[in-house]
Amino acid sequence: MNEALFTANNLWLLVSTILVFIMHLGFATLEAGFVQKKNVVNILFKNTMIVAIGLLTYAIIGFNLMYPGMNEGGLFGFSGFGLSLPEGDPIDYASGNYTYWTDFIFQGMFAATCATIVSGAVAERIKLGPFLIFSALFVAICYPITGFWNWGGGWLKAAGFYDFAGSTMVHAAGGFAALAAVLVLGPRRGKYTESGIRPIPGHSMPLATIGVFLLWFGWYGFNGGSVLSADPMGVSLVFVTTTLAAAAGAVAAFFASYVLFKSHDLSMVLNGILGGLVGITAGADQMGPMAAILIGGIAGLIIPFSVVFFDRLKIDDPVGATTVHLICGVWGTLAVGLFGAKAGLTQVLVQLLGVGSIGLFSFAAAFGIMYVLKVTVGIRVSEEEEIKGLDMGEHEMSAYADSPHSDQLSLSVH
Amino acid sequence: MNEALFTANNLWLLVSTILVFIMHLGFATLEAGFVQKKNVVNILFKNTMIVAIGLLTYAIIGFNLMYPGMNEGGLFGFSGFGLSLPEGDPIDYASGNYTYWTDFIFQGMFAATCATIVSGAVAERIKLGPFLIFSALFVAICYPITGFWNWGGGWLKAAGFYDFAGSTMVHAAGGFAALAAVLVLGPRRGKYTESGIRPIPGHSMPLATIGVFLLWFGWYGFNGGSVLSADPMGVSLVFVTTTLAAAAGAVAAFFASYVLFKSHDLSMVLNGILGGLVGITAGADQMGPMAAILIGGIAGLIIPFSVVFFDRLKIDDPVGATTVHLICGVWGTLAVGLFGAKAGLTQVLVQLLGVGSIGLFSFAAAFGIMYVLKVTVGIRVSEEEEIKGLDMGEHEMSAYADSPHSDQLSLSVH
Amino acid sequence: MNEALFTANNLWLLVSTILVFIMHLGFATLEAGFVQKKNVVNILFKNTMIVAIGLLTYAIIGFNLMYPGMNEGGLFGFSGFGLSLPEGDPIDYASGNYTYWTDFIFQGMFAATCATIVSGAVAERIKLGPFLIFSALFVAICYPITGFWNWGGGWLKAAGFYDFAGSTMVHAAGGFAALAAVLVLGPRRGKYTESGIRPIPGHSMPLATIGVFLLWFGWYGFNGGSVLSADPMGVSLVFVTTTLAAAAGAVAAFFASYVLFKSHDLSMVLNGILGGLVGITAGADQMGPMAAILIGGIAGLIIPFSVVFFDRLKIDDPVGATTVHLICGVWGTLAVGLFGAKAGLTQVLVQLLGVGSIGLFSFAAAFGIMYVLKVTVGIRVSEEEEIKGLDMGEHEMSAYADSPHSDQLSLSVH
Repeated sequence: MNEALFTANNLWLLVSTILVFIMHLGFATLEAGFVQKKNVVNILFKNTMIVAIGLLTYAIIGFNLMYPGMNEGGLFGFSGFGLSLPEGDPIDYASGNYTYWTDFIFQGMFAATCATIVSGAVAERIKLGPFLIFSALFVAICYPITGFWNWGGGWLKAAGFYDFAGSTMVHAAGGFAALAAVLVLGPRRGKYTESGIRPIPGHSMPLATIGVFLLWFGWYGFNGGSVLSADPMGVSLVFVTTTLAAAAGAVAAFFASYVLFKSHDLSMVLNGILGGLVGITAGADQMGPMAAILIGGIAGLIIPFSVVFFDRLKIDDPVGATTVHLICGVWGTLAVGLFGAKAGLTQVLVQLLGVGSIGLFSFAAAFGIMYVLKVTVGIRVSEEEEIKGLDMGEHEMSAYADSPHSDQLSLSVH
Repeated sequence: MNEALFTANNLWLLVSTILVFIMHLGFATLEAGFVQKKNVVNILFKNTMIVAIGLLTYAIIGFNLMYPGMNEGGLFGFSGFGLSLPEGDPIDYASGNYTYWTDFIFQGMFAATCATIVSGAVAERIKLGPFLIFSALFVAICYPITGFWNWGGGWLKAAGFYDFAGSTMVHAAGGFAALAAVLVLGPRRGKYTESGIRPIPGHSMPLATIGVFLLWFGWYGFNGGSVLSADPMGVSLVFVTTTLAAAAGAVAAFFASYVLFKSHDLSMVLNGILGGLVGITAGADQMGPMAAILIGGIAGLIIPFSVVFFDRLKIDDPVGATTVHLICGVWGTLAVGLFGAKAGLTQVLVQLLGVGSIGLFSFAAAFGIMYVLKVTVGIRVSEEEEIKGLDMGEHEMSAYADSPHSDQLSLSVH
Repeated sequence: MNEALFTANNLWLLVSTILVFIMHLGFATLEAGFVQKKNVVNILFKNTMIVAIGLLTYAIIGFNLMYPGMNEGGLFGFSGFGLSLPEGDPIDYASGNYTYWTDFIFQGMFAATCATIVSGAVAERIKLGPFLIFSALFVAICYPITGFWNWGGGWLKAAGFYDFAGSTMVHAAGGFAALAAVLVLGPRRGKYTESGIRPIPGHSMPLATIGVFLLWFGWYGFNGGSVLSADPMGVSLVFVTTTLAAAAGAVAAFFASYVLFKSHDLSMVLNGILGGLVGITAGADQMGPMAAILIGGIAGLIIPFSVVFFDRLKIDDPVGATTVHLICGVWGTLAVGLFGAKAGLTQVLVQLLGVGSIGLFSFAAAFGIMYVLKVTVGIRVSEEEEIKGLDMGEHEMSAYADSPHSDQLSLSVH
């Protein structure tokens, strides 16, 4: 290792950080596109605040909890609480691939994505304040604890569990939390009626499409950065597997939804891409191109069936987050046992152990937090507000000011 | 060459790959913005599927066809069809600038752009299925064949033809295919009437503007990555010429359209930027700043005249793809003969030979495929569907669910 | 220094250039989201043209004016006016971190942002032509002059003034120019009435949100690129401070606007992020994480109060540009004196000198240019056009063609 190589490695992690950052805009636009017009400001507000809260809480406690021993400061304040810049040791170019600051900022960007997964599933009926409290607790405490089990060098890593960039650590964890939150919260009013399941279409397919492309774009940093260096073979292989899995997810979801619904459903294709991406994430560094196509393709096939399945169970998830992140995350994690470097029954069982333990913890923690919030401050908006829309109810503004309520709105001050 | 330099070179090609990827979102939003509200889901669906299909077909056959000899596997399956990761040779840092995986993924991202060019020109009246079949064949077979002629080391390269990043190889090839497709397909109903040419305005200028900025953004990877290394002089010069050509295209189109139409036409300025970018692409690595301004400026000047010209010929192209990609692509290719490193009559003639042969092949192949599809499965939606919109006709959903048909829509399942 | 390190450093500046480029799309979408539906084409048109004009004028005169002595050519034409590519000296890898071309293109992308700041403040009532003339003059002459004072090695640098990436040099300079322009231009009709301040809500919160996320995204290049190398410690620290300041700005603006208005105001949170980013920009390379949180947090707290303050003074700024760029820019510059490497009273006074001199020059120059334009060609659209909207008045098109005037519109030709 020398200075130039260290610089290139560190640079790639910083670029990956930016790419993961823009995934938050991807989530914001995807979820905004999939909700009704009357709840758009609310979902944008939540997604914006989650990024900010997630980064701050990760700085204050999450990073230390997930990677103990990385800093002298104990549990809180990843570089102390002084205002002045701490004196850093000179970089030892011979060991490591990136600076301490790079490590923190890359991990911090990752952390907030976990809570963002939940926001889509509980959209259109959750109260703003309790949701933000839930997100802060989940990012600050739950995600770092399960993160420590594997990436921080804990017991799951020791057991041989492998999850390259987070099919389980991030996506299924977020998906299990979303499932718990939806169960505590209940479905949107009018979704499941005596006469059947009422479709509630999203208000903007362009926004949803922008969201999926931005998520795909950012995933090159999410998976590519998880190589933790700019190693040419490592990163370029991850790019190939990530890309082909996403493409296969789209094509498989296209066919599966055509067979199932006899129509060309854009939202299924978009979720097929995301399913493929979530699926390849656990083993993106150890699959050949054809295995990547297979993994992504199966994820895409699962999508429409899973969406129907959750709907039959009256688990109301406006954006399909449980399908994309939980189901495809579990599939991708198991696929490492089927096609990965150490494929075999033992690896499959270890992968199941990882999925089970992290899923159980995330589900239980999210259920617990949501339940306590429900019986104390309440987590659900009033029936009147849900019908009128959360934009007027929680924010006194509309996403599109030419809408009927525009006379009551304000850009800035009243 | 050493490991650090190899790593930096490889990294830039991977970053360029991501930038070329986001051009697909640029095309999707640009074309969505320029079509009518009733056809938005359809154009988003096509642009999403093209990326996926283009990448998969390029993996299965396109890459091998375009760069024969790069792999042992013959025509199909660029790294074999085994599920496990092929054993790679250790990288020889002393030769080459990037890995085999990087080579494939960068080229694969390029390939799909060619078919995307066509999708805008045939928008608002083509059937979904036949269009996807056309795209798959064009990306899998036609583009790699002409690509081989030059970039793969074929006869055009031997003849001295120069096309740095694809003014002809990608843009004019796609533009000629678009022209052929439009001729087989015919104009939109009601566009050319006895009382004159009826303007059909696009439904969202913000979407179109987002599209052009994303395309410009991605073009830094398209042109900059075509240096095929991170060579400081090479890439930075390409950035300067690409940027100044785009800027000059905007300003020239601004003035030309003001002179022609006496109004400040945003769509002309947007297409002026794209024209400048397409124009500089063939010689971005060998122009000085003033030549870049001249090339981009002339491309921008051409835009409004060319749009009027095609409209007079009743060649109906909703987004101006033939103007931007075909006309400005030809101009940029010839400009290499006028201002490039080997400027002179001989080079101009060789450039003409390249444009002519690739144009003829692309036009003929696209015409043939479209014609066969027309007389077999049919390529045009019914009159009723065209009037009602392809979103309801092909997808049973609307792009904006508050539109009149929202009660018939479904986000996910029926 | 060696070739590999030079390549990595140069690469980061080129990537930063792309990131700063996409900030222009951020400004375009942010401002488009915050204006009324009838003025959307106009604001998109202006933001698109500013980029193009800014880059061209910077090539012709701005770069030479700001960095005299960098080239032989005198005041004009940064690499001469010949069409052929100038013979470059071979790169001396032992000195410097980037090529001459990289230097120009990174600085050129920066320059245009300054004029873009103004465009939001004067939106919805300024005439297109005079605004473009103003922008061209400001980018070509005013910004390079103040830029030279500090970054070009002029008297402010000699005095010890420190502004890392431009809290004052770019943001407050643009903000002071915006203030001057608004004072010459006057408020929008109907904004300040006898019965009080009438809120005029923006037409699309999704567009505004996209804008802020893209600006945050691009800011990693704006601040990170200002390290002028890929130095691992330098760039990664800048990433940490920039990120935490933005996050703190969001959270602080959330609380401050809740206290002030008793509602969850998305536009305040979005401007809080921008305020935090502007605030940290002057000292992003020399703050610890906690100082960054403090600086960004105070910037966020300021936002709602400053917006109310300007509104009370009847200074009508549709997007809050004076608050975000002027006020937070001044705060960030002073914060360098409070928490920076040379914190102390002397540094505070020097920072005040810098803010004062640059603010005065920018204000006076902008006021002068606007005033001359006002008394000669006129800068304000007619009352009729302002009511009807600038899209129909200046561009004869509507941003959304399903709007009432769609029958009068044209995508391309009439």
